[in-house]
Amino acid sequence: MASHPQKHPLDPLSAAEILQISSLIKEVSPDKSLHFKLISLLEPPKVLLREFLKAERNASGAFSTSGPSLARRAESLYYHRGTSDLVHVTVNLDLGKLEGVKKVEGHFHAQADIDEILEMREVCLRDETVKEQVRAFRLPEGMKVVCDTWPYGRDNNTQTPRFVQCYLFAERNHPGSNHYDNPLPFSPIVDMVKREVIDIVRLPTGSDSSLKPNAVYEPHPAKEYHHELQAQPARTDLKPLVIHQPQGVSFSIDGYLIKWQKWRFRLGFNWREGMVLHDVTYDGRELFHRLSLSEMFVPYGDPRMPYSRKSVFDVGDIGAGVAANNLALGCDCLGVIKYFSFVITNSQGNPIEKPNAICMHEIDDGIGWKHTNSRTGAVSIVRSRVLVLQSIITVGNYEYVFMWHLDQAAGLHYKIQATGILSTAPIDRGVTVPFGTRVNEGVLAPFHQHVFSLRIDPCIDGDNNTFLEEDSVPMPWNDQNPYGVGYVTENRIISTSSPSESAPNRVHKIINPASINKSSGAPVAYAIHSPGKQMLLAHPDSWHGRRAKYAFHPFWVTKHRDNELFAAGDYTYQSHPDLTSDLGSWAARRDNTENTDIVVWHSISLTHNPRTEDYPVMPCDTMTVSLKPSGFFDQNPALDVPQSMQKDNGSCLVRDEDVAVVVEGKAREFKL
Amino acid sequence: MASHPQKHPLDPLSAAEILQISSLIKEVSPDKSLHFKLISLLEPPKVLLREFLKAERNASGAFSTSGPSLARRAESLYYHRGTSDLVHVTVNLDLGKLEGVKKVEGHFHAQADIDEILEMREVCLRDETVKEQVRAFRLPEGMKVVCDTWPYGRDNNTQTPRFVQCYLFAERNHPGSNHYDNPLPFSPIVDMVKREVIDIVRLPTGSDSSLKPNAVYEPHPAKEYHHELQAQPARTDLKPLVIHQPQGVSFSIDGYLIKWQKWRFRLGFNWREGMVLHDVTYDGRELFHRLSLSEMFVPYGDPRMPYSRKSVFDVGDIGAGVAANNLALGCDCLGVIKYFSFVITNSQGNPIEKPNAICMHEIDDGIGWKHTNSRTGAVSIVRSRVLVLQSIITVGNYEYVFMWHLDQAAGLHYKIQATGILSTAPIDRGVTVPFGTRVNEGVLAPFHQHVFSLRIDPCIDGDNNTFLEEDSVPMPWNDQNPYGVGYVTENRIISTSSPSESAPNRVHKIINPASINKSSGAPVAYAIHSPGKQMLLAHPDSWHGRRAKYAFHPFWVTKHRDNELFAAGDYTYQSHPDLTSDLGSWAARRDNTENTDIVVWHSISLTHNPRTEDYPVMPCDTMTVSLKPSGFFDQNPALDVPQSMQKDNGSCLVRDEDVAVVVEGKAREFKL
Repeated sequence: MASHPQKHPLDPLSAAEILQISSLIKEVSPDKSLHFKLISLLEPPKVLLREFLKAERNASGAFSTSGPSLARRAESLYYHRGTSDLVHVTVNLDLGKLEGVKKVEGHFHAQADIDEILEMREVCLRDETVKEQVRAFRLPEGMKVVCDTWPYGRDNNTQTPRFVQCYLFAERNHPGSNHYDNPLPFSPIVDMVKREVIDIVRLPTGSDSSLKPNAVYEPHPAKEYHHELQAQPARTDLKPLVIHQPQGVSFSIDGYLIKWQKWRFRLGFNWREGMVLHDVTYDGRELFHRLSLSEMFVPYGDPRMPYSRKSVFDVGDIGAGVAANNLALGCDCLGVIKYFSFVITNSQGNPIEKPNAICMHEIDDGIGWKHTNSRTGAVSIVRSRVLVLQSIITVGNYEYVFMWHLDQAAGLHYKIQATGILSTAPIDRGVTVPFGTRVNEGVLAPFHQHVFSLRIDPCIDGDNNTFLEEDSVPMPWNDQNPYGVGYVTENRIISTSSPSESAPNRVHKIINPASINKSSGAPVAYAIHSPGKQMLLAHPDSWHGRRAKYAFHPFWVTKHRDNELFAAGDYTYQSHPDLTSDLGSWAARRDNTENTDIVVWHSISLTHNPRTEDYPVMPCDTMTVSLKPSGFFDQNPALDVPQSMQKDNGSCLVRDEDVAVVVEGKAREFKL
Repeated sequence: MASHPQKHPLDPLSAAEILQISSLIKEVSPDKSLHFKLISLLEPPKVLLREFLKAERNASGAFSTSGPSLARRAESLYYHRGTSDLVHVTVNLDLGKLEGVKKVEGHFHAQADIDEILEMREVCLRDETVKEQVRAFRLPEGMKVVCDTWPYGRDNNTQTPRFVQCYLFAERNHPGSNHYDNPLPFSPIVDMVKREVIDIVRLPTGSDSSLKPNAVYEPHPAKEYHHELQAQPARTDLKPLVIHQPQGVSFSIDGYLIKWQKWRFRLGFNWREGMVLHDVTYDGRELFHRLSLSEMFVPYGDPRMPYSRKSVFDVGDIGAGVAANNLALGCDCLGVIKYFSFVITNSQGNPIEKPNAICMHEIDDGIGWKHTNSRTGAVSIVRSRVLVLQSIITVGNYEYVFMWHLDQAAGLHYKIQATGILSTAPIDRGVTVPFGTRVNEGVLAPFHQHVFSLRIDPCIDGDNNTFLEEDSVPMPWNDQNPYGVGYVTENRIISTSSPSESAPNRVHKIINPASINKSSGAPVAYAIHSPGKQMLLAHPDSWHGRRAKYAFHPFWVTKHRDNELFAAGDYTYQSHPDLTSDLGSWAARRDNTENTDIVVWHSISLTHNPRTEDYPVMPCDTMTVSLKPSGFFDQNPALDVPQSMQKDNGSCLVRDEDVAVVVEGKAREFKL
């Protein structure tokens, strides 16, 4: 009965499957127009999936033919078009039928989608009152108004239909014009169900909340990022750099199964989390069952209405998969590149390709390890080769680069880069405010934070793991420490679900208490290395704070339950904290988390107080979180990496004549 | 009269100059045998040097012919051989004569040098009592004893001659044998003046300080790092990766003057600090007068005698220049490489080349910046090219990689990597201790720290700079912040010389109060980004603490004075804190540091509690400190980097047939 005999239970949905699902759904609502919000793979329950994956790994071939059987399932969320009626269904793809159809409670809203965003922009810009206010602002000839929509960050208790807040900008006539350089001083609010403007909020432009209803456009020198719009010519002295792999790449691919340098994992992708790594092992030993971006929250620090609503859950409100870029060879990715393309649904239930949404390639990352025996002169050195998996998303003004770097010493590094354009607001000439940076005349870039939630579902040598904090602590100065120089480590096991704080040098470890490292005598462990950061700066009782509880603590541990994937809850759009099941509520169960199936959640906080250098486009700001073996292996797992050899990598000397400055006519002369 | 008309005042000494200096010195002591400790360039007084450098930069050619005149000077330190009589001289190279000859006070000791270390190893191993103890330890046939010398970290008040502590190990007969796998349980102490063993200290091998005088060698399976000594074959699935620059490199070199992508700086090198960057500008604007590794301190956390003496100032006691590796093409450096070689003195006063001590090359560092206009689909993207300057040093068991990464957005990144071999100590079978990790049977790797001092002599738009701390602070929840979501930055100027602490998200900035950014309205600034770390764990009143005061605080600011270069003092070997002028005493002057010529000192702390994976050789552990413009430029300084193009970098797709797994004989099959 298997309709997809070639599919692995974790393979992302194909175009045919999406069409199969939307057709099945449309069949049961023949009289309704449906607005599809998502169609996504439903991963099997973890207990069954783990059994399947282990059997598959232990089988000799790439896939088990004798392992446990697993149904392939999907889910969908859709509105009855033009209403607030939201329906959730599950579909059994093998049986080709709906298994559950459930009306979603009215206080939950689905995420925004691209078709809808395009429609709301239209609704806003064709509204007569909006047009009138635009006219009153007196833009110069040739400037056109464009509309950026923002999820309506809740700032009061009222249950409303889905709203969207619109921020308006004026742009010059060029496809790469930086419209953020010309923010307009009012913000229409659109009811997404009625599809009409319900309010136009005047924006404060001074140093306080006072308004200037009769403001008109004041010109200023433009700051543009697009190459064709630069006053200065581009640099001409950057010589090409070519990365070549004459014998091909070092990885192998079988569908979504990837093997490279003792690593083995499955690549996943969905509309919400984007890139997911499944079933990650190194040298045959289990490390992580699932690694994913669970959520990200972007609240702004401008205290004034309506900026108090400027807060977005970019994963839950929009979707990292939906926003994934089509990566371009030689631009987003340099070298010898493997691309992966995926399929999501549009609002009609038709498959839409996300081409080249993930790229994979190898890079040289400097020295892996080195030692020179100074007595004999013998040099041992290996280079560090890294496998990069990269996805880039565009969310309105901002871009985020998400990368996994896998190294040869069994380290995984999650890298987040922020780039793109600052969200801007109008500001009166000569005014400065303490919660933002003036990046051009009339242009304010308010302070804001980005708090990402990395969900780490570990299986360090198996499912029963424990999370702990380890600190380095000076010994008391006494007979055991007669010179006052000794220090030791102390650890604290997090034995019930709860948050855990950072401290300088504190190492958070995931251990398997039952698997002992034979050299050290201690349980095997992976450590999470991440610089300590300030967490959410909004007040915990504010709407931002209540809606994004995960963002107050850098680490959390919970006992695993299926369907607890999203740190701010399943339905984040205009979410009400009292009605949301989120990481805060899961941790509050105080489940046992010792020597059991746990999930670790790491909140990665980037407090972004803009620099003038971040405008009109921001150089990448990079954060790195490393998952590294820490007493997991008996010795350096990269010992068997071959010595680096010039004959293999063709490195060569710079020719002096290519780089030396020649002062013509006379020899150089110093006055000494 | 200029004897070196081609020399810039900052050019490192040549072989001819070293010979000239040692000859001049020998001439004045014809009746004495001299043991040269150092011969090094004396940089001109800063006020004069700054004037010279500015004139040079403003001149049209590479060097000024009309600027101020500067004498080229050097210094030397030498012992009357076989005595504790230490002499310091300064030499005017232009005049070809000694300008000052001064006997150094008797409580100061010069650093160790390689000739001396080789001699002391001999002294230790040929000592009859040492030989007897080695015999009593009953090493198996074929194992040879080798001696590692360690500076004698002071742990009492006594003024003694220079001592060296010896740690003994047994090695197999291979030039890459890991002798650290076989530590012997006793440590001879050698008087470096008398050249004789004065004591043999028994090492504790249990969980406390008790000793086992009759211990004999117990065999255990070896852990070796050298490729020829591995039980497992090397990986065979790593394909070559070639970095090619078909049109050459993007930098130009004129002597030690380097220009690349709007950067301009001079490269320096000396026996002590190794690599130094001078007169660093970007796009013609002054940033840093001098950037150098001022000191590094490596104290061990094992509280027991004699490990209480295991603490080294690797810069002052040994020298980062002295210990610099001869870097190898395609091994230490990948791509198209420029090497710089330098010259130091040996103990005879003869020039010794340090070949290929610094390498320079370009790397691709991922995406520089990107934005996609989602309305028009227009994509703007540039890659980030980085100029890497790298030096690697070997200090006994450890290797350190020091790198400056210069990026196109005016950021400088100081990267330190620790690799090499853990310092080991013997431990009885079955014993664990809380201040170390057992990395093999009988082998303990004690906890330790590495605290580096990065000396930053700034000239942000000129000499008069100010250092400040900037924090992000939630606003009180009141009428100005009606939703409780606002936050602002607050800063605190460090107006007198003193230390400054880290805090999560605290940004330390160097500003020029007189140079205002026209967009933001605030003074121009460079920020120092460095993750917050635990500082020195030894007690402040311990000898470690008193000798390395700099290591207790992550930041310090002082008012600039010539000859204050080394955070733990000029003479660190067996230094006595009461007799040492160091960063602690300079800060204690409480000089004004506001809007004046300041120096910022950044202590970078790596607390290294060894992992089993760090043995028998340690995968690189990397720390990064970034100096980034923060309101220094009016806009993104990398705006004019040209778009990245596939046609230039030749990136290509992986061919599917190269990576796909083919399961022979039958199609893949899933049970679903």
